[in-house]
Amino acid sequence: MKGAPTIPDWIALDWGTTHLRAWLMTADGSVIERRDCDKGMGGLSRDAFEPVLNDLLSDVITNTKLPVICCGMAGSRQGWAEAPYTPVPCVPPSASKATIVTSANWDVRILPGVKQNSPADVMRGEETQIAGFLASEPNFDGILCLPGTHSKWAHISAGEIISFRTFMTGELFALIGGQSVLRHSVSTNDWDQDAFDAALSDTLTRPADLAAKLFSLRAEGLLHNLSPAAARARLSAFLIGAELASAKPYWLGQQVVILGENTIALAYETALTAQGAMVHCVNAEQMTLAGLNAAFDSLQETKP
Amino acid sequence: MKGAPTIPDWIALDWGTTHLRAWLMTADGSVIERRDCDKGMGGLSRDAFEPVLNDLLSDVITNTKLPVICCGMAGSRQGWAEAPYTPVPCVPPSASKATIVTSANWDVRILPGVKQNSPADVMRGEETQIAGFLASEPNFDGILCLPGTHSKWAHISAGEIISFRTFMTGELFALIGGQSVLRHSVSTNDWDQDAFDAALSDTLTRPADLAAKLFSLRAEGLLHNLSPAAARARLSAFLIGAELASAKPYWLGQQVVILGENTIALAYETALTAQGAMVHCVNAEQMTLAGLNAAFDSLQETKP
Repeated sequence: MKGAPTIPDWIALDWGTTHLRAWLMTADGSVIERRDCDKGMGGLSRDAFEPVLNDLLSDVITNTKLPVICCGMAGSRQGWAEAPYTPVPCVPPSASKATIVTSANWDVRILPGVKQNSPADVMRGEETQIAGFLASEPNFDGILCLPGTHSKWAHISAGEIISFRTFMTGELFALIGGQSVLRHSVSTNDWDQDAFDAALSDTLTRPADLAAKLFSLRAEGLLHNLSPAAARARLSAFLIGAELASAKPYWLGQQVVILGENTIALAYETALTAQGAMVHCVNAEQMTLAGLNAAFDSLQETKP
Repeated sequence: MKGAPTIPDWIALDWGTTHLRAWLMTADGSVIERRDCDKGMGGLSRDAFEPVLNDLLSDVITNTKLPVICCGMAGSRQGWAEAPYTPVPCVPPSASKATIVTSANWDVRILPGVKQNSPADVMRGEETQIAGFLASEPNFDGILCLPGTHSKWAHISAGEIISFRTFMTGELFALIGGQSVLRHSVSTNDWDQDAFDAALSDTLTRPADLAAKLFSLRAEGLLHNLSPAAARARLSAFLIGAELASAKPYWLGQQVVILGENTIALAYETALTAQGAMVHCVNAEQMTLAGLNAAFDSLQETKP
């Protein structure tokens, strides 16, 4: 049940493909309340965004349109309003480059994504996490790893995103683990860390055997009673291992910070540490919020 | 509409996960009629197999139980009756090793699959295609490639399957092309052969970059208007290329025969020929039928 909250000074939004997260904020960057819903951009037509926001925030609509700073897929071509990509190398886009959306109740600014022309690549949302990280580590020079549905590796130097690369690792794990012939073999929430470690090491040595290794999970289940916990850990190791092998030029001998949520960040941290990389983790959602905060602050500074 | 056919001497069945194919056969191996339906093993409980067969062949049920020779997933643990795997190295299993099923109308024999303990691997159905190929090429020494949902590479020598390896290439293509974020990027039946050739060559040079290359299809569509025909051909090349890179010890410098259906066999033939392999194709369904025929013949020879 929603109470009668303090009216916020502004709203922070992370509007992704499957979820919408909103924070009711004070001007000094404190969170009054966090809300979320499953009305992601993927299921919304263009004219459905404003009603979803009105519904989620109905109790804080005021006569003065509150500022709303939004990152994520809401800014894609199929989203609420297109916020054109900024090309690398670039500082993470600030509110001055945002797309302003006309709305009855809100002063909405959608932050741009970032693009790279060659190799072709795009991000929407991660640039705001990167901005949030740089807000507290402005002199960071190294690699950010943002694991997830579409994992990103970004080279950061002098406050800029120099280059980045996206891997469909999380989406492949969900598809193969949930819908392929392997779905029964890996159907468990248990986890065999030894199986993960061994399979990761093996995959980094021979990263090209993915399609054969995948089927071996099924065959080992049939012939040698491979446990679902080991099969699931190995599936994860095959995919993360292939990503790490391919991303090696990013992390080898580099300082790496992982911006991720608990379980997945830990899997990457374990894997990278085993390869001798210098790694630590920070919470991805906190970085998103810090990035939206930085964008709000930049908006205040540029006001006449 | 079914007519009133000549009563066959026996029935050949290829009962896979998604389809059932039946041939009404004469004793000398001629096909009277071919029938099929979508009652694959994947959707059937154990007691549903016999009614499906009775339904498909209702007009040729006689007082004497006709011999039925069956290959494929109907012999799996979740199938009609388990036909235990024969371990490699082995000649493709003959009818003498078949599992006999008690049935009111039919004398059913389900051919065993083949297993390999290390690396763990299994086949069910392909061993019958291999038997069919060896029936006309008994002295073949080389490599058979059987592309499909689960592509197989088998080393054949002195009439035996020496070793084999399975790749989930076809299933990955269907999942990624049909259900991932790339589904819109590759949504076409058109095909860009130049894009396939270039992506295949690139993949064989750097086979480990799959997850990044996949996302690049989406990004190139967004940033550089990559056509769906080129994206679809590249997706195929990334997956087939990764399979060929991994299977290189099988085909390098070897005589390779592809047992496949038209489009997919041609893609493999083009790819392998570009790599300098000596390749030719034979029709997979004809090999299945030849293998079932050979099994029927072996049954006649062993009769008292």
